[in-house]
Amino acid sequence: MCDQCGCQANTARGRKVLDINKSLLEENQKLGEENRRHIQEMGAVGINIISSPGAGKTTLLEATADAAAGHFSFGVIEGDIETERDAERIRKKGIPAVQITTGGACHLDAHLVHGGIHQIQDTAGPEGLDIIFIENVGNLVCPATFYLGEHQRIVMVSVPEGSDKPAKYPRAFIGSDLFIISKADLLPYFDFSMEEASEEAKRLNPDIKILTVSAVTGEGMEHWLSYLSGLLNR
Amino acid sequence: MCDQCGCQANTARGRKVLDINKSLLEENQKLGEENRRHIQEMGAVGINIISSPGAGKTTLLEATADAAAGHFSFGVIEGDIETERDAERIRKKGIPAVQITTGGACHLDAHLVHGGIHQIQDTAGPEGLDIIFIENVGNLVCPATFYLGEHQRIVMVSVPEGSDKPAKYPRAFIGSDLFIISKADLLPYFDFSMEEASEEAKRLNPDIKILTVSAVTGEGMEHWLSYLSGLLNR
Repeated sequence: MCDQCGCQANTARGRKVLDINKSLLEENQKLGEENRRHIQEMGAVGINIISSPGAGKTTLLEATADAAAGHFSFGVIEGDIETERDAERIRKKGIPAVQITTGGACHLDAHLVHGGIHQIQDTAGPEGLDIIFIENVGNLVCPATFYLGEHQRIVMVSVPEGSDKPAKYPRAFIGSDLFIISKADLLPYFDFSMEEASEEAKRLNPDIKILTVSAVTGEGMEHWLSYLSGLLNR
Repeated sequence: MCDQCGCQANTARGRKVLDINKSLLEENQKLGEENRRHIQEMGAVGINIISSPGAGKTTLLEATADAAAGHFSFGVIEGDIETERDAERIRKKGIPAVQITTGGACHLDAHLVHGGIHQIQDTAGPEGLDIIFIENVGNLVCPATFYLGEHQRIVMVSVPEGSDKPAKYPRAFIGSDLFIISKADLLPYFDFSMEEASEEAKRLNPDIKILTVSAVTGEGMEHWLSYLSGLLNR
């Protein structure tokens, strides 16, 4: 484990920090399990979405708001370093959203999300929510180390980022249930190899599902809705 | 400071970790100053480039190799979590490149870069190098906290990521000398406000310079070369 961050690094320095970080990660794991129980008691499914900045997490959730109407309900816990912007975008779609700002930290942890779960519960109507999305801080590295209590973890890479991302950021793929390739409408304009991205992701994690979506053209949105419907507790 | 990472977080937990992280950051700062002396003794200028994954750091350096021929020489220290791919891409352009893989860590630190500086010195010819680029791990958060010994720090955001990135990732902009907006050829196809990005970056850091480039069309490459030439120690 890196001596600065919770991530995995091969370093001989900072043994003391390693031990303390280990115990903090253990504490995080316990709090994550508590979060999971809370989400289950609400009758909901928790989904943690991880990606680089600007891969299109918020845009996909906006498009999901339109597409899910009449099928299922959801709320969003938005994680950002600064600003309330993403939660405002989601609320404009009539979806309950809670903004968590980390004040500089590069990832959400179970402690921060715990508060968010209670808040989202308060903003939801009496019929509750089917899904709680947790939109992590835009970062393909550190969030992969922190369990938040989710039932499903999704990693998203947008076409302009390039198809080498699974090989370069393996941990995010090893721990995820679904790999979303977003901004698929841009495929004709970029040197993005669907084969390279898929094969590398499957090599790292043979069980990972792969979905290609475009929130702009609507491509893949039907499969995305089916995927979500398949996770519901009913 | 976050109790998992070196970044700035407002947390009441983990005081002990805070203190140890503080001393590790102080150690990093000292090592960074040593790196800076090494780079200066080589007669070179060190430039640390920070961005999200896939913003186009390696592509810009490939284009710089073509454009800089006859003007100045440079080498690249490539930081990645895994894979030797980026250094291979740079070497194909005839540019000396050293790959540092962090083995999971989300950022380069001065200790890792120290080894890279010695290696790049060995691979450079007898006439030495004018510039040493340090291409950081693709991450807009954690690398902003770690001084590597650079004379200049550059933050890069690509057009597809969106113009809200300075507001959402302020620390990377506060500490940088230059803000590069990359993939400028995509401006007609994205809802990217040049005004929003520039104004927010300048609000965070009134001294930051801003350059718009496209490695594909060559737009802005002349300004980029002038900028680099203005930094040289001769």
